[in-house]
Amino acid sequence: MVTHTPTNGHAGEQDVDLTSSALNHRIAEQAANGTNGANGHHANGHAAAPAELDASKLTIRRADPAARAVPDEATACSGNETICTDHMITCAWDASRGWAAPELKPYGPLSLMPTASVLHYATECFEGLKAYRGFDGKLRLFRPDLNAKRMLMSTLRISLPGFNPKQVERLISTLVAVDGPKWLPADRPGSFLYLRPAMIGTQPQLGVQAPKEALLFITASFMPRMDSMPGGLKLHTSPEDMVRAWVGGFGYAKVGANYGPSLLATNEARARGFGQILWLYGPEGYCTEAGASNFFVVWRARDADGGKLQLVTAPLDDRLILDGVTRRSIVELARERLAGELEMVERKYTIDELLDADREGRLVEAFAAGTAYFICPVSLVHHRGKDVQIPLGKGDSGQYTAKIKGLMGDIMYGNEQHPWGVVASMD
Amino acid sequence: MVTHTPTNGHAGEQDVDLTSSALNHRIAEQAANGTNGANGHHANGHAAAPAELDASKLTIRRADPAARAVPDEATACSGNETICTDHMITCAWDASRGWAAPELKPYGPLSLMPTASVLHYATECFEGLKAYRGFDGKLRLFRPDLNAKRMLMSTLRISLPGFNPKQVERLISTLVAVDGPKWLPADRPGSFLYLRPAMIGTQPQLGVQAPKEALLFITASFMPRMDSMPGGLKLHTSPEDMVRAWVGGFGYAKVGANYGPSLLATNEARARGFGQILWLYGPEGYCTEAGASNFFVVWRARDADGGKLQLVTAPLDDRLILDGVTRRSIVELARERLAGELEMVERKYTIDELLDADREGRLVEAFAAGTAYFICPVSLVHHRGKDVQIPLGKGDSGQYTAKIKGLMGDIMYGNEQHPWGVVASMD
Repeated sequence: MVTHTPTNGHAGEQDVDLTSSALNHRIAEQAANGTNGANGHHANGHAAAPAELDASKLTIRRADPAARAVPDEATACSGNETICTDHMITCAWDASRGWAAPELKPYGPLSLMPTASVLHYATECFEGLKAYRGFDGKLRLFRPDLNAKRMLMSTLRISLPGFNPKQVERLISTLVAVDGPKWLPADRPGSFLYLRPAMIGTQPQLGVQAPKEALLFITASFMPRMDSMPGGLKLHTSPEDMVRAWVGGFGYAKVGANYGPSLLATNEARARGFGQILWLYGPEGYCTEAGASNFFVVWRARDADGGKLQLVTAPLDDRLILDGVTRRSIVELARERLAGELEMVERKYTIDELLDADREGRLVEAFAAGTAYFICPVSLVHHRGKDVQIPLGKGDSGQYTAKIKGLMGDIMYGNEQHPWGVVASMD
Repeated sequence: MVTHTPTNGHAGEQDVDLTSSALNHRIAEQAANGTNGANGHHANGHAAAPAELDASKLTIRRADPAARAVPDEATACSGNETICTDHMITCAWDASRGWAAPELKPYGPLSLMPTASVLHYATECFEGLKAYRGFDGKLRLFRPDLNAKRMLMSTLRISLPGFNPKQVERLISTLVAVDGPKWLPADRPGSFLYLRPAMIGTQPQLGVQAPKEALLFITASFMPRMDSMPGGLKLHTSPEDMVRAWVGGFGYAKVGANYGPSLLATNEARARGFGQILWLYGPEGYCTEAGASNFFVVWRARDADGGKLQLVTAPLDDRLILDGVTRRSIVELARERLAGELEMVERKYTIDELLDADREGRLVEAFAAGTAYFICPVSLVHHRGKDVQIPLGKGDSGQYTAKIKGLMGDIMYGNEQHPWGVVASMD
């Protein structure tokens, strides 16, 4: 028997966007009063509210600085293990007490019960950003506010607790201020450390439910340079039986669940001599991401379409792709500084459009863009048995790719003083 | 420029099913020679092959049996923490050496580096099955071979190492043989423990890649009975902006990435008074799973369609849903033993068909089926502002639901001697 349900008090229309309305509601709540909003609503003003994440409560326990030496650049990334700096920051949360005082302490293992939520249900998310040793000697972060805000969105999407993003930004900056001077030495200008804030569900409970305990942790480590592969990055389009993300899914959030499932196809592509998968979407074959990076193409529009030189990348509005900080910065810089040379276009485009542009001699350049790969020239796209060769006009890069990379790098490494380059400090 | 690629040596057709061909290839390889096939191919007969998973190498370090008491049934599941038995089994793997000797040892925390793959990229999968204390006093597993085989499929899908499923089955059985006598006491016939084999990527490496180190672990714990909720289980259909699994995804594999992302919608539904989400798929609104369980409906077909009583559940062929052991057993039992009463139908069906059946008085029963929920009567489906009330003819259950539950339970608890009920032993 069908009945309308006044008891639930929700109109039918509200049923169709349960998720995004929940998410928007919680992000707004977070911004308004900073409550730990992920796991249920607590009454404001009643009982003791769970504690907020507060970077000013940080406790510091220093490692012996003589215990570990900084590896040279050649060996820093040569092993099977990521080398982290002397310290990490951790901060525990539980649903009743809220956030404990964050701790800066010697880098070392975490202890998790075998029943911990993260080990079974992928209640995890992360961020990736870098600390840059400037040519002026300063240690900078690049737009860390965007990473901290995106992390909040990811944590809420994966049912982990909320926090004030500014506090995470402060913790990141503090870790860099403490470990940067030793691990990113002043005699290595133009180099970087990789920063990895992450949050995991730690409640030892096998019920499939939002965890009532969580841990935020931040590490700093070496990471290889991946922005200048000899011969450029070669991409293999995704197979028809493998979809990375989908409308209604979580492709826009930096949650672990987007990564593990993609490794199988990536490994197969690598075994065939390619660097990453170019993820296509839907029967139309929309180009979305290149590996775990955003993807940009430079082409000349057809004469009938105005014939302009365009820098094209997939849009954010269907929430299939990550709102990359590098992506966003490129889009903004291109509009601000390259408008006389090319038109910045965010729109859906298909692999067939890429093939057409190639066949018609309109394909100019392509690159992957993200924190790990920075801006990495793409030299080839393999699709269904065919190779599209993409010009590297300057030998190892297209000219527009190089120009954009230069603009970004100048901000990161302090050649240009810019609000996006934030000097690390302990506040 | 487009060129065909003899260098890669793959025809275009092979590009469209990269994933499933890789997966099938590796499962076949595993079956043929039992190699650790997940992370690259090693030459058979050359160099030292990585060691196979071998249950006969198990080492045993016993906990002090007096250290922990078995809680009574009322309190065993009342806290926020899952209570595990005295022991767990762990087994470490790395890509060069293969599987180490499995260890049965006291239950306790795992130590993971903050950079461990599982904490960032959801390189994790699990199984769920139960140990049953029979009315004849024996400890049984229910079709553990199916869980072990499915676990192999899940591990390969998520780029974790392969193993011989028979060895995992032996390890599970051993843990039950060791801890069952104390933790599933003979004076509690008709009760169960929950078994959780899991595998995680442990390599401390932040590169997005298949882990070269992994850990298999198995725990046994208490879990609440969830098969007889007062008033039946109430389902809320999934919102349009939330898709659990998709064609080309990994909905069929028991990987963490299917669970964490679903918690947000589940929490919202619970806040509105529902027990689980009924996951719909596509613009047609195909019914797929109920929470993390399979979903069955009993209805009478329209007269024009033969008018038969049918037990309907979603099919496996589009790989959207989990190939549940409970689901498969119900399908097989219904065909074997209930053919005179109802027709077992595996096919796609939509929420509109469910609504039609209700409106036309043809809807008879519905239930969720899985290891955790066992066979759980569904009393209501809420869809877009409307409630479909589903009869519970016997008060707390429909009659066919109760009959199927009885058949299954008799095998699990030894009232019927059946090959699916496997007595636990140390071999």
